[in-house]
Amino acid sequence: MLPPLKLGLCGLGTVAQGMLTVLHDNREIVREKAGRDIQVVRVASRTEKPDVDLLGGSFSTDLATVTDDPDLDVVVELIGGEGVALDLVRRTLRAGKAVVTANKAILASKGDELLSLVREHGGMLAFEAAVAGGIPIIATLTRSLVANEIRLLAGIINGTSNYILTAMTESGQSFAEALADAQKLGYAEADPSFDVEGIDAAHKLTILGALAFGVGFKFDEVYTEGISEVSGEDIEYARQLGYQIKHLGLARTGPDGVQMRVHPTLIPEGHLLASVNGVMNAVLVRGNVTGDTLYYGPGAGALPTASAVVADLIDIARGNRPELPLMTRDNSVTLLGIEDVESGHYLKIPSLDKPGVFARVATLLSEREISIEAAIQKEQAIHTETQEAWVPIIILTQPVRESVMNDAIDALQQLPEIVGRIRSIRVEHLGDE
Amino acid sequence: MLPPLKLGLCGLGTVAQGMLTVLHDNREIVREKAGRDIQVVRVASRTEKPDVDLLGGSFSTDLATVTDDPDLDVVVELIGGEGVALDLVRRTLRAGKAVVTANKAILASKGDELLSLVREHGGMLAFEAAVAGGIPIIATLTRSLVANEIRLLAGIINGTSNYILTAMTESGQSFAEALADAQKLGYAEADPSFDVEGIDAAHKLTILGALAFGVGFKFDEVYTEGISEVSGEDIEYARQLGYQIKHLGLARTGPDGVQMRVHPTLIPEGHLLASVNGVMNAVLVRGNVTGDTLYYGPGAGALPTASAVVADLIDIARGNRPELPLMTRDNSVTLLGIEDVESGHYLKIPSLDKPGVFARVATLLSEREISIEAAIQKEQAIHTETQEAWVPIIILTQPVRESVMNDAIDALQQLPEIVGRIRSIRVEHLGDE
Repeated sequence: MLPPLKLGLCGLGTVAQGMLTVLHDNREIVREKAGRDIQVVRVASRTEKPDVDLLGGSFSTDLATVTDDPDLDVVVELIGGEGVALDLVRRTLRAGKAVVTANKAILASKGDELLSLVREHGGMLAFEAAVAGGIPIIATLTRSLVANEIRLLAGIINGTSNYILTAMTESGQSFAEALADAQKLGYAEADPSFDVEGIDAAHKLTILGALAFGVGFKFDEVYTEGISEVSGEDIEYARQLGYQIKHLGLARTGPDGVQMRVHPTLIPEGHLLASVNGVMNAVLVRGNVTGDTLYYGPGAGALPTASAVVADLIDIARGNRPELPLMTRDNSVTLLGIEDVESGHYLKIPSLDKPGVFARVATLLSEREISIEAAIQKEQAIHTETQEAWVPIIILTQPVRESVMNDAIDALQQLPEIVGRIRSIRVEHLGDE
Repeated sequence: MLPPLKLGLCGLGTVAQGMLTVLHDNREIVREKAGRDIQVVRVASRTEKPDVDLLGGSFSTDLATVTDDPDLDVVVELIGGEGVALDLVRRTLRAGKAVVTANKAILASKGDELLSLVREHGGMLAFEAAVAGGIPIIATLTRSLVANEIRLLAGIINGTSNYILTAMTESGQSFAEALADAQKLGYAEADPSFDVEGIDAAHKLTILGALAFGVGFKFDEVYTEGISEVSGEDIEYARQLGYQIKHLGLARTGPDGVQMRVHPTLIPEGHLLASVNGVMNAVLVRGNVTGDTLYYGPGAGALPTASAVVADLIDIARGNRPELPLMTRDNSVTLLGIEDVESGHYLKIPSLDKPGVFARVATLLSEREISIEAAIQKEQAIHTETQEAWVPIIILTQPVRESVMNDAIDALQQLPEIVGRIRSIRVEHLGDE
């Protein structure tokens, strides 16, 4: 048997503790699959050591004891965030060593630099745990679907947002109520903006897009919109039209370039992604050879994420190198701005209940060559300020360029019969183009 | 760049042609990901060469030209079946070379022997394409979920059966009508028994079970039942009870041993597997660390299967070794016979429409400690022979040992009020135990 793989661990939060649990509880499995032991030699965390079995590793509050130990084979970075974690990953890679990390933020913002360091110094960088925890989507893109040109990625990749939208859909809760429940259950942070405003999903999509399309890690160029403005009404109207609202990360390649965007999306209720509920995640991948495949599982949580970390460790222990699929790609692929993206739109247009309003709306859309796929006109309500009778006109359009749709919404908003802000949510059928 | 990986191809059927198409059309991707070219040096097929671009490979009808060429790095076996294919895989492995195959039959029946040959002679055996074509389930079990103890596998792993059951469910077709349509569409063979009697699914489950549980490749011990006796009535009654009928391959480990079985199964309609329709496949994997993950995609077809073959080739070209997770496992794990398996049962009991029949049935079940989860009594019908009024009593039981259920069915069948054969289908909730 080979000598043990010597591991240094930075960070002692829940994922790190999960990793120690897996290395302890599944010790025999890990040894068998790795063909050698994985030995925790050093553990460092800036806070004092919690009451955790370090499996024989020596503890320090000084991260340098890990990064500067030349005897370690691999450093596991589970601190998270960009500051300290980024420094120590850089330092370890500059020493030509292997890093295993679950840190999506540093990959999304500095992935290109970190991969350069790997190439320059001969180290390794494995990050299966950084995207969708228990779902092996990194290995799928870099290995299993490696013979494919990837055409589309569509993922439910933020469990908090999916929990909230599921609760709003299934029990009619408002966004605020569902968020409060998610916070009580530990599915959302006290400050939930990172999740519900789509930033976390954009980090993950940045990584998936870089792997699938070779566009580099361009977090700043991913269009990002969260779920905080989705209303129970929108969900109900979508349902009546045969759709569910999900928060999707979408990356697609086409003749004009690559588009990467994160936003609430109407998808057909018969699509498998529409059945992915609660905190679960799923990613649809369309390859030019396999067609559509889909991967479903827990997107977060200490143990599922730890499972991915340990899988990377076993892979390195076996002597495999984590794949760096971008090594020979250049970063010159065009990334489309959101104004150039085409998608269908759900429009909720609050209008006076007068004859001819729907016709005026339809004419205005038609003048801009926007086709209506479906429409419903709802029961009357009374406008709170003007006391006039009004109805929401609900329209689903065929795919149309975002800039054209924005112009149309601006024009609709000027009509005297429109009595409130028009709400627009993108629609994706996720069918073959 | 490394010298090309030299490939010999045996077989020129649809998957082989698909592989040549992928190597041709995605040439740049393959070269980039493999870090070298994959060169088709020799192609052999017992029939005359079809009009196919062999990408520079020389053609022969003598398979020995491939197996006996010491200059080849890897032999791709895409002949299928057991006779000739098995011989050539043995021969290649004995020469210490790498084999990539999509042949589930030889793995299911001779997997243990073939892996011994790999260990003995230092070759390689890669078979991602052998199970569920476009779904990377082999890599998932041997790599991505490698830190897990696998508790449950539940898969829709035969596209023909799933197509037929979906058609029966969605359009009310009979088994015979749906089968005829499947044959017209090319989803079923002229002799469909291999698919509809569950043998193909049992081959695949044998392989998955061997990888997940280290029980060896024990095709002969997998309990196998097909879908040919599922009726439209069963599907409708199941629906009324909140279930769908799917043809599942199930492998589960528990305190008593490992169970492996293939049969039609009622699953809750809310479960993601219940939404896997048509020819698509999906596998649910429950690990002790990740919990439930699910993998969905095309289970067959030339291109998805070729995608898996090429992924294995690229993996070998990169210098990785396909994992042999059974290397250090013994085969002493107990495999339970079907009589020792516990599951719920759907019973359709054709009985005379007389007072007290349901009570007698319930009493008889209760005497055997079989609990009823749900029951429906349907509208009256007239028995064709006796002209007596009869009704089907539909019962869903709690999980019960198969041998106990069989005794109960025998006893029920003796009741004078039972006017026809009792139909029984297993029920699985697929929840955590």
